[in-house]
Amino acid sequence: MFERIALIGLGLIGSSLAHAVKRERLAETIAGYDASDAVRKRAAELELAAIAPTAADVVKGADLVILCSPVGSYKDIAAAIAPHLAPGAIVSDVGSVKSAVLRDVSPFVPQGVHFLPAHPIAGTEQSGPDAGFSSLFDHRWCIITPPPGADEGAVAKLKQFWERCGSQVEVMEAGHHDLVLAMTSHVPHLIAYNIVGTAHDLEKVAETEVIKFSAGGFRDFTRIAASDPTMWRDVFLNNRDAVLEVLGRFNEDLSLLQRAVRDGNGQMLFDLFTRTRAIRRSIVDIGQDSAAPNFGRDQIKEDNQ
Amino acid sequence: MFERIALIGLGLIGSSLAHAVKRERLAETIAGYDASDAVRKRAAELELAAIAPTAADVVKGADLVILCSPVGSYKDIAAAIAPHLAPGAIVSDVGSVKSAVLRDVSPFVPQGVHFLPAHPIAGTEQSGPDAGFSSLFDHRWCIITPPPGADEGAVAKLKQFWERCGSQVEVMEAGHHDLVLAMTSHVPHLIAYNIVGTAHDLEKVAETEVIKFSAGGFRDFTRIAASDPTMWRDVFLNNRDAVLEVLGRFNEDLSLLQRAVRDGNGQMLFDLFTRTRAIRRSIVDIGQDSAAPNFGRDQIKEDNQ
Repeated sequence: MFERIALIGLGLIGSSLAHAVKRERLAETIAGYDASDAVRKRAAELELAAIAPTAADVVKGADLVILCSPVGSYKDIAAAIAPHLAPGAIVSDVGSVKSAVLRDVSPFVPQGVHFLPAHPIAGTEQSGPDAGFSSLFDHRWCIITPPPGADEGAVAKLKQFWERCGSQVEVMEAGHHDLVLAMTSHVPHLIAYNIVGTAHDLEKVAETEVIKFSAGGFRDFTRIAASDPTMWRDVFLNNRDAVLEVLGRFNEDLSLLQRAVRDGNGQMLFDLFTRTRAIRRSIVDIGQDSAAPNFGRDQIKEDNQ
Repeated sequence: MFERIALIGLGLIGSSLAHAVKRERLAETIAGYDASDAVRKRAAELELAAIAPTAADVVKGADLVILCSPVGSYKDIAAAIAPHLAPGAIVSDVGSVKSAVLRDVSPFVPQGVHFLPAHPIAGTEQSGPDAGFSSLFDHRWCIITPPPGADEGAVAKLKQFWERCGSQVEVMEAGHHDLVLAMTSHVPHLIAYNIVGTAHDLEKVAETEVIKFSAGGFRDFTRIAASDPTMWRDVFLNNRDAVLEVLGRFNEDLSLLQRAVRDGNGQMLFDLFTRTRAIRRSIVDIGQDSAAPNFGRDQIKEDNQ
């Protein structure tokens, strides 16, 4: 599909892309760069990609360039690679916010290069070049947010690329993407980070107790709250308005629920707890989560015994 | 270990206990009762237990009685079974709150019967007699909260029972249990229910979008928010003070985090996101969660393909 794919950033997503591109033979050459010396060294050991010494070098001759580093790093990378981008190349990314990416990168993109931001809705709580695997994007969604006037052929080619990587693709306006993801990803992460922080700080309950008795529900939140700190800091710094809008609604709803607990309003609690079951069912039905109880984690435990 | 174990309530926990008791041969007879005709019928089909027609009947001759129904039902059950309890019997339960259980049940317990509330920290989001399985309690904790002056021999016997069911046992004061569980279970559930409700109500994001793009984190919350509505309503009606205390701390912390997002305080976000990783590691290290990325749910998906 491509002559040379350049991956800038070789953490969980970048390394998974390298595996997926290899699996599907989507490029003659996979070139890679990471700002960290240690990651570049490890990526070379893992033979993820032909490692380049700089971002400028890695994009030379590439017909597809994908930024896979935290979104806070994009502006500097864009400035560094812009003079070296091949005419007709597609430049894309995998960042979790899209309006800020358009704002930061677009000014550097030369005429004749197609800048098409994208976001695969896939990941795990692990990070680094060892965490990647080729099936990460299978059956997941990837959202492409082309700027107004984007080349339709380039959009179709990027769409095909993600489909070959295993994903279903949706095209969406960047601002709407940011609001949808604030709801389905960013605020859930913020809340998970917050409650794990609360548990850590609560004086009356020992941390050992929190850890031992975490199977009551808390442990689910700790998975999300173990995600990469740099990546998530950059998400919140770059999707402020949508996050604050959704968080405002969350807080309103939580105040009502808090009041229901205080008043002993069992009917309101029961009604909410019944409504929320239906959403779970829909997610399982369309294959976006495992139907196995506890995500199947007990099943895995038994398989390993 | 026991002549006759009587299980009152044959949902996820009651049916799992029946399976575990069979697996470990802990009783000559397993007797069962459920307030629902349909559940009694299904439990008989599944041969979970010798089904009795009333709660009064099921406890006759039992040396261990375990309440496995929602805690809101305990008071009526206690009144109904009290006259039929055998001298020397142990009466226990599996409810998620413990002070309210002592308050509701203790007045009905006759002299010579040992009332020892307990709480296995185990479960799944599924409910009903078909949801149970024998290994549910393996490697999980069970907390026993004996009232002051409880018989030490009876406590030791109940402890041994739960250990045979696969659990580790901790003895704790009921009030402390309720605070610990408010932190590790009740408030996490409330927050999960709340954010799933917010997603459902948000006008600007379609429910289909929430469902499709749930793999960004939201889907983890929907598992918890699919738990049994009656059971959870009763938890919040019966652990109000501890839930409001922990929720107050959660809200304070969330206000600070919201402010950090508004102010673009990247350092504060990064510091919190780094601290929370350590708690996840501890939970995995002591075997209270799977170390596999995404709880191993991708692994299961691949095994099934």
